[in-house]
Amino acid sequence: MRPKIYLFGDSITEESFGDGGWGASLSHHFCRTVDVVLRGYSGYNTRWAVKVAERIFPPVESGGAPPLAFTVFFGANDACLPDRYSAFQHVPLHEYKQNLHSIISFFKKRWPEIVILLITPPPIDEDARLRYDSNTLALYIFVPFFLNTSYGHPYIENPSGLPERTNEAAGAYAQACISVAKECGCPVVDLWIKMQECPDWKQAYLSDGLHLTQAGNRIVFEEVVKELKEKGISVENLPVDLPHIANIDPQDPLKAFQDC
Amino acid sequence: MRPKIYLFGDSITEESFGDGGWGASLSHHFCRTVDVVLRGYSGYNTRWAVKVAERIFPPVESGGAPPLAFTVFFGANDACLPDRYSAFQHVPLHEYKQNLHSIISFFKKRWPEIVILLITPPPIDEDARLRYDSNTLALYIFVPFFLNTSYGHPYIENPSGLPERTNEAAGAYAQACISVAKECGCPVVDLWIKMQECPDWKQAYLSDGLHLTQAGNRIVFEEVVKELKEKGISVENLPVDLPHIANIDPQDPLKAFQDC
Repeated sequence: MRPKIYLFGDSITEESFGDGGWGASLSHHFCRTVDVVLRGYSGYNTRWAVKVAERIFPPVESGGAPPLAFTVFFGANDACLPDRYSAFQHVPLHEYKQNLHSIISFFKKRWPEIVILLITPPPIDEDARLRYDSNTLALYIFVPFFLNTSYGHPYIENPSGLPERTNEAAGAYAQACISVAKECGCPVVDLWIKMQECPDWKQAYLSDGLHLTQAGNRIVFEEVVKELKEKGISVENLPVDLPHIANIDPQDPLKAFQDC
Repeated sequence: MRPKIYLFGDSITEESFGDGGWGASLSHHFCRTVDVVLRGYSGYNTRWAVKVAERIFPPVESGGAPPLAFTVFFGANDACLPDRYSAFQHVPLHEYKQNLHSIISFFKKRWPEIVILLITPPPIDEDARLRYDSNTLALYIFVPFFLNTSYGHPYIENPSGLPERTNEAAGAYAQACISVAKECGCPVVDLWIKMQECPDWKQAYLSDGLHLTQAGNRIVFEEVVKELKEKGISVENLPVDLPHIANIDPQDPLKAFQDC
């Protein structure tokens, strides 16, 4: 059985197998060595993640290998402001830290040897969030078909004209994420800082002020690969599943499969 | 546990999580409902696939759910001509059919209820294959670092000036694949025919005369989704893993997680 790397997070994880997505890129990068397993839940915060972790990650059945690593990528929803229209997703900063601790403890108790890689929320382009709200509102007015869910779309009511997220708040949650990583001895990708190193980060990396463009996805992919490598998890270090074509003798191909 | 769809095949499967790849697109399409598991092996033919199937697909451990479906996508390497430079990958047509039967029998014996979706090899652009050989040869002459494998790159010796694959041969293997599917009652994607319905198929769908462009990947994705849907496997029919954000009550979010 191939080892697994689980991607646990919110919409930025759930969407990571779209075109140029960081999850798909990880799968491609680790093909023949690791199964990258998608466990992204759009809109979720750490409070809900704590509630569902046990159900998402049952103990490995007998004979199954423990996972190699987890990415834990929450905070973008926790950082929704408590007095704006996405307040129901907000989690206070101190609880966000507690919840990250709980998630890490849960994984470490179940699989003591695994690598848990935290990823901070990305920076926020507040103007783009407001433009996105307007566009979404227009879409939902003209295409009421999409409202056919139990509670409608939870994002569309924004009479305040203020964004539901700010870059400052996202930065505070990113800093909290880094603190937790340090406290727990976990590696961390500081996406909030890393993206803002590029002067054009709003256009280059964010598609709607929050979610990632292909270039934004590329950064997450590269940073995750780098951090995993520092923990000894790399294509070079992992056994390849079945003989590589370059290691099959053209004169006697079946020799390579004698032990299969 | 989420149900699984396995992608079993050669390089066109192994590379299917690259940008715009059909495997990544399936993962994205089925996110929150199915785990799409990559089992692609570049250069492999059905003879080798039969040898390794038992090792790749061990019986599901106790408590594990049987897979939902398999895609079986071989033939592009079997169809290498027996008197050209990739002859070591060639498998005679009658054996190709036998091997597909063996693979289907193996899956059906292990998991009687699963859907096995065959995919024929794509058409071949012979001129592009020759251009690709020349380019690869140049690459390997100027970058000898890449030759650092046990047997070197097996594709580079082509003094004949003739392509290792022809579209006619690929068509014969595609037809054989369809026959096997009919004999076994399996759904099948006739990629060889489907792609050639577009007058510009060589440029539109093939990157090197054999492997797929993003548009070519798109066709595989759409055809696989269509065939799976006809067998009752669709996002609409599958349970969603944990409550969707639109079904979480903003007034009382935790209510949605009472049973988790």
